[in-house]
Amino acid sequence: MHEFDLIKNYFQKLSKKSPSSLNLNDDVFFDKKNKLVVSVDTYIEGNHFIDFKKPDLVIKKIIRSSISDLICKGVKPRYYFISGSGNKKSFSKLNLSKISKSLDQEQNKYKIFLSGGDTVFSNKLSFTITSIGFANDIIYRNKAKINDDIYISGNLGDSYMGLLVLKNKIKLNNLLSKYFTKKYFMPNIKFELLDQIKKFANTSIDISDGLLADLDKMINSQKLSYKIDLKKIPISNKLRKLLILKKLSKINFISKGDDYQVLFTASKNKRRIIKKISSNYRIKLTQIGSIKNFSKKSSIIDDKNRTISLKNKGYFHQF
Amino acid sequence: MHEFDLIKNYFQKLSKKSPSSLNLNDDVFFDKKNKLVVSVDTYIEGNHFIDFKKPDLVIKKIIRSSISDLICKGVKPRYYFISGSGNKKSFSKLNLSKISKSLDQEQNKYKIFLSGGDTVFSNKLSFTITSIGFANDIIYRNKAKINDDIYISGNLGDSYMGLLVLKNKIKLNNLLSKYFTKKYFMPNIKFELLDQIKKFANTSIDISDGLLADLDKMINSQKLSYKIDLKKIPISNKLRKLLILKKLSKINFISKGDDYQVLFTASKNKRRIIKKISSNYRIKLTQIGSIKNFSKKSSIIDDKNRTISLKNKGYFHQF
Repeated sequence: MHEFDLIKNYFQKLSKKSPSSLNLNDDVFFDKKNKLVVSVDTYIEGNHFIDFKKPDLVIKKIIRSSISDLICKGVKPRYYFISGSGNKKSFSKLNLSKISKSLDQEQNKYKIFLSGGDTVFSNKLSFTITSIGFANDIIYRNKAKINDDIYISGNLGDSYMGLLVLKNKIKLNNLLSKYFTKKYFMPNIKFELLDQIKKFANTSIDISDGLLADLDKMINSQKLSYKIDLKKIPISNKLRKLLILKKLSKINFISKGDDYQVLFTASKNKRRIIKKISSNYRIKLTQIGSIKNFSKKSSIIDDKNRTISLKNKGYFHQF
Repeated sequence: MHEFDLIKNYFQKLSKKSPSSLNLNDDVFFDKKNKLVVSVDTYIEGNHFIDFKKPDLVIKKIIRSSISDLICKGVKPRYYFISGSGNKKSFSKLNLSKISKSLDQEQNKYKIFLSGGDTVFSNKLSFTITSIGFANDIIYRNKAKINDDIYISGNLGDSYMGLLVLKNKIKLNNLLSKYFTKKYFMPNIKFELLDQIKKFANTSIDISDGLLADLDKMINSQKLSYKIDLKKIPISNKLRKLLILKKLSKINFISKGDDYQVLFTASKNKRRIIKKISSNYRIKLTQIGSIKNFSKKSSIIDDKNRTISLKNKGYFHQF
């Protein structure tokens, strides 16, 4: 069973009495009266991260992934709780020192505070992060409008290239290996967007499962479709050169997930302000397509205006 | 490494900047300004619950265990988040239906609402529950006073007997098996105490790891000791009869954990009000000992006034 069906069939009805749950169909929980925003995510070894050889980097990745859920909604994360399950090896003194140091660095970078959690013994390593922030309002999912521009922040695909390097599926020189694996472990989440995104976005999500998977999720209860222009999707110069060199195609790199860029839609009349904010705050924001009405099928088109069909839009949990 | 040392050595310093974390030395996080109370706990198959043959009961146990952390502090739980990691078998349609039904029953019983969470694929089954409530104030740990009476709610030990039955370490007739295993799976948490406990308790904790382990935890940063009277520790009539019949000793049953009773201390001048509330709300509250000054060693004495020495005070995670 697809994880979405699981939630829809068995859990959505339980949340009906709590409007703050947003029907379990958003990245966060938002209790408007108490201004409370909560995100809960679990990260498992061999699934959300390959292994624990680099605990310092894995910890950074999962903390950023968790607070990214709040940041893409325009909510400043304030507290985080970490619940770790692992064994003696995973939680050796050396690893604990590294974990603690990484958390300290992330706390200073993002002004968040460890506020609690749990540590339990298990032979399967996993972490659950609860992130909490306060906000008068958030940017919801499913608020796109017909003809909205679709934007993403930063570049896509670097993280997936990093994953291929880590899995030894692709060989690169040292410098490039470092560049791409750093992008995988330490996504450059858009903290600078926090106070700006509410000025222009109608709806938003962070890209964790893949551009198209998350685009689908972002408008999944709206009768809308989208059209994405492959050539507009921004990738780094390093990735562009590498794709040419290795004869790899762009389409296979831009919807694999782990990007933690912000995906949002905005009305066309916001183009000027978006350009201005992008330039003032030095945040790359690229228009990659637009929202269409439901009679059209969602599509991604290549540079010859042909529709590309994708078998796998991103990462999903299957039960 | 003992889980307490792990937290103390590697994580406590990270929480220093957030007074709400209560130094990671309480059951909950309390942000007084925002009136926010949070508890995060992870439950693992083979550790916090034996197996998943009875998903309906396991779910009840972990939900109650989670909200018990808030209730023992006088805080009404309002929202919960459930993050489940499991495989196709654990999350089969039948099991999901049972989980969903159990959650619905718990929601109605305790007026709490599912507000979010995560579902991820893993061959190791575990759940992390985040419970949230709002309160102007809470009952903290480490606020006991010398000569305070020590009280517990309900009875101890039934749950441990249930665990022995489930593990086939003890054979009982059907009726008794049902009674004790129900106590194990569905702890009768003291929801009725919620609005009352602030009227008399100086400090409190819920008994999850074992009476003595949690008593130690409750006053672990205070220079205090305790004296407990074994014969005063309340057990059910069913357990009392069974101990005699099977020639088992009481001391081996009252500090094994999973009781989810409330342990608290109160000044002696509160005895009358405690008696009154106990009788009015039909909540069994038993004085089992008292808080002493630090020069005396903490002890538990038997009916001949001899000090009993215990090797193992309860359940701890070791790394």
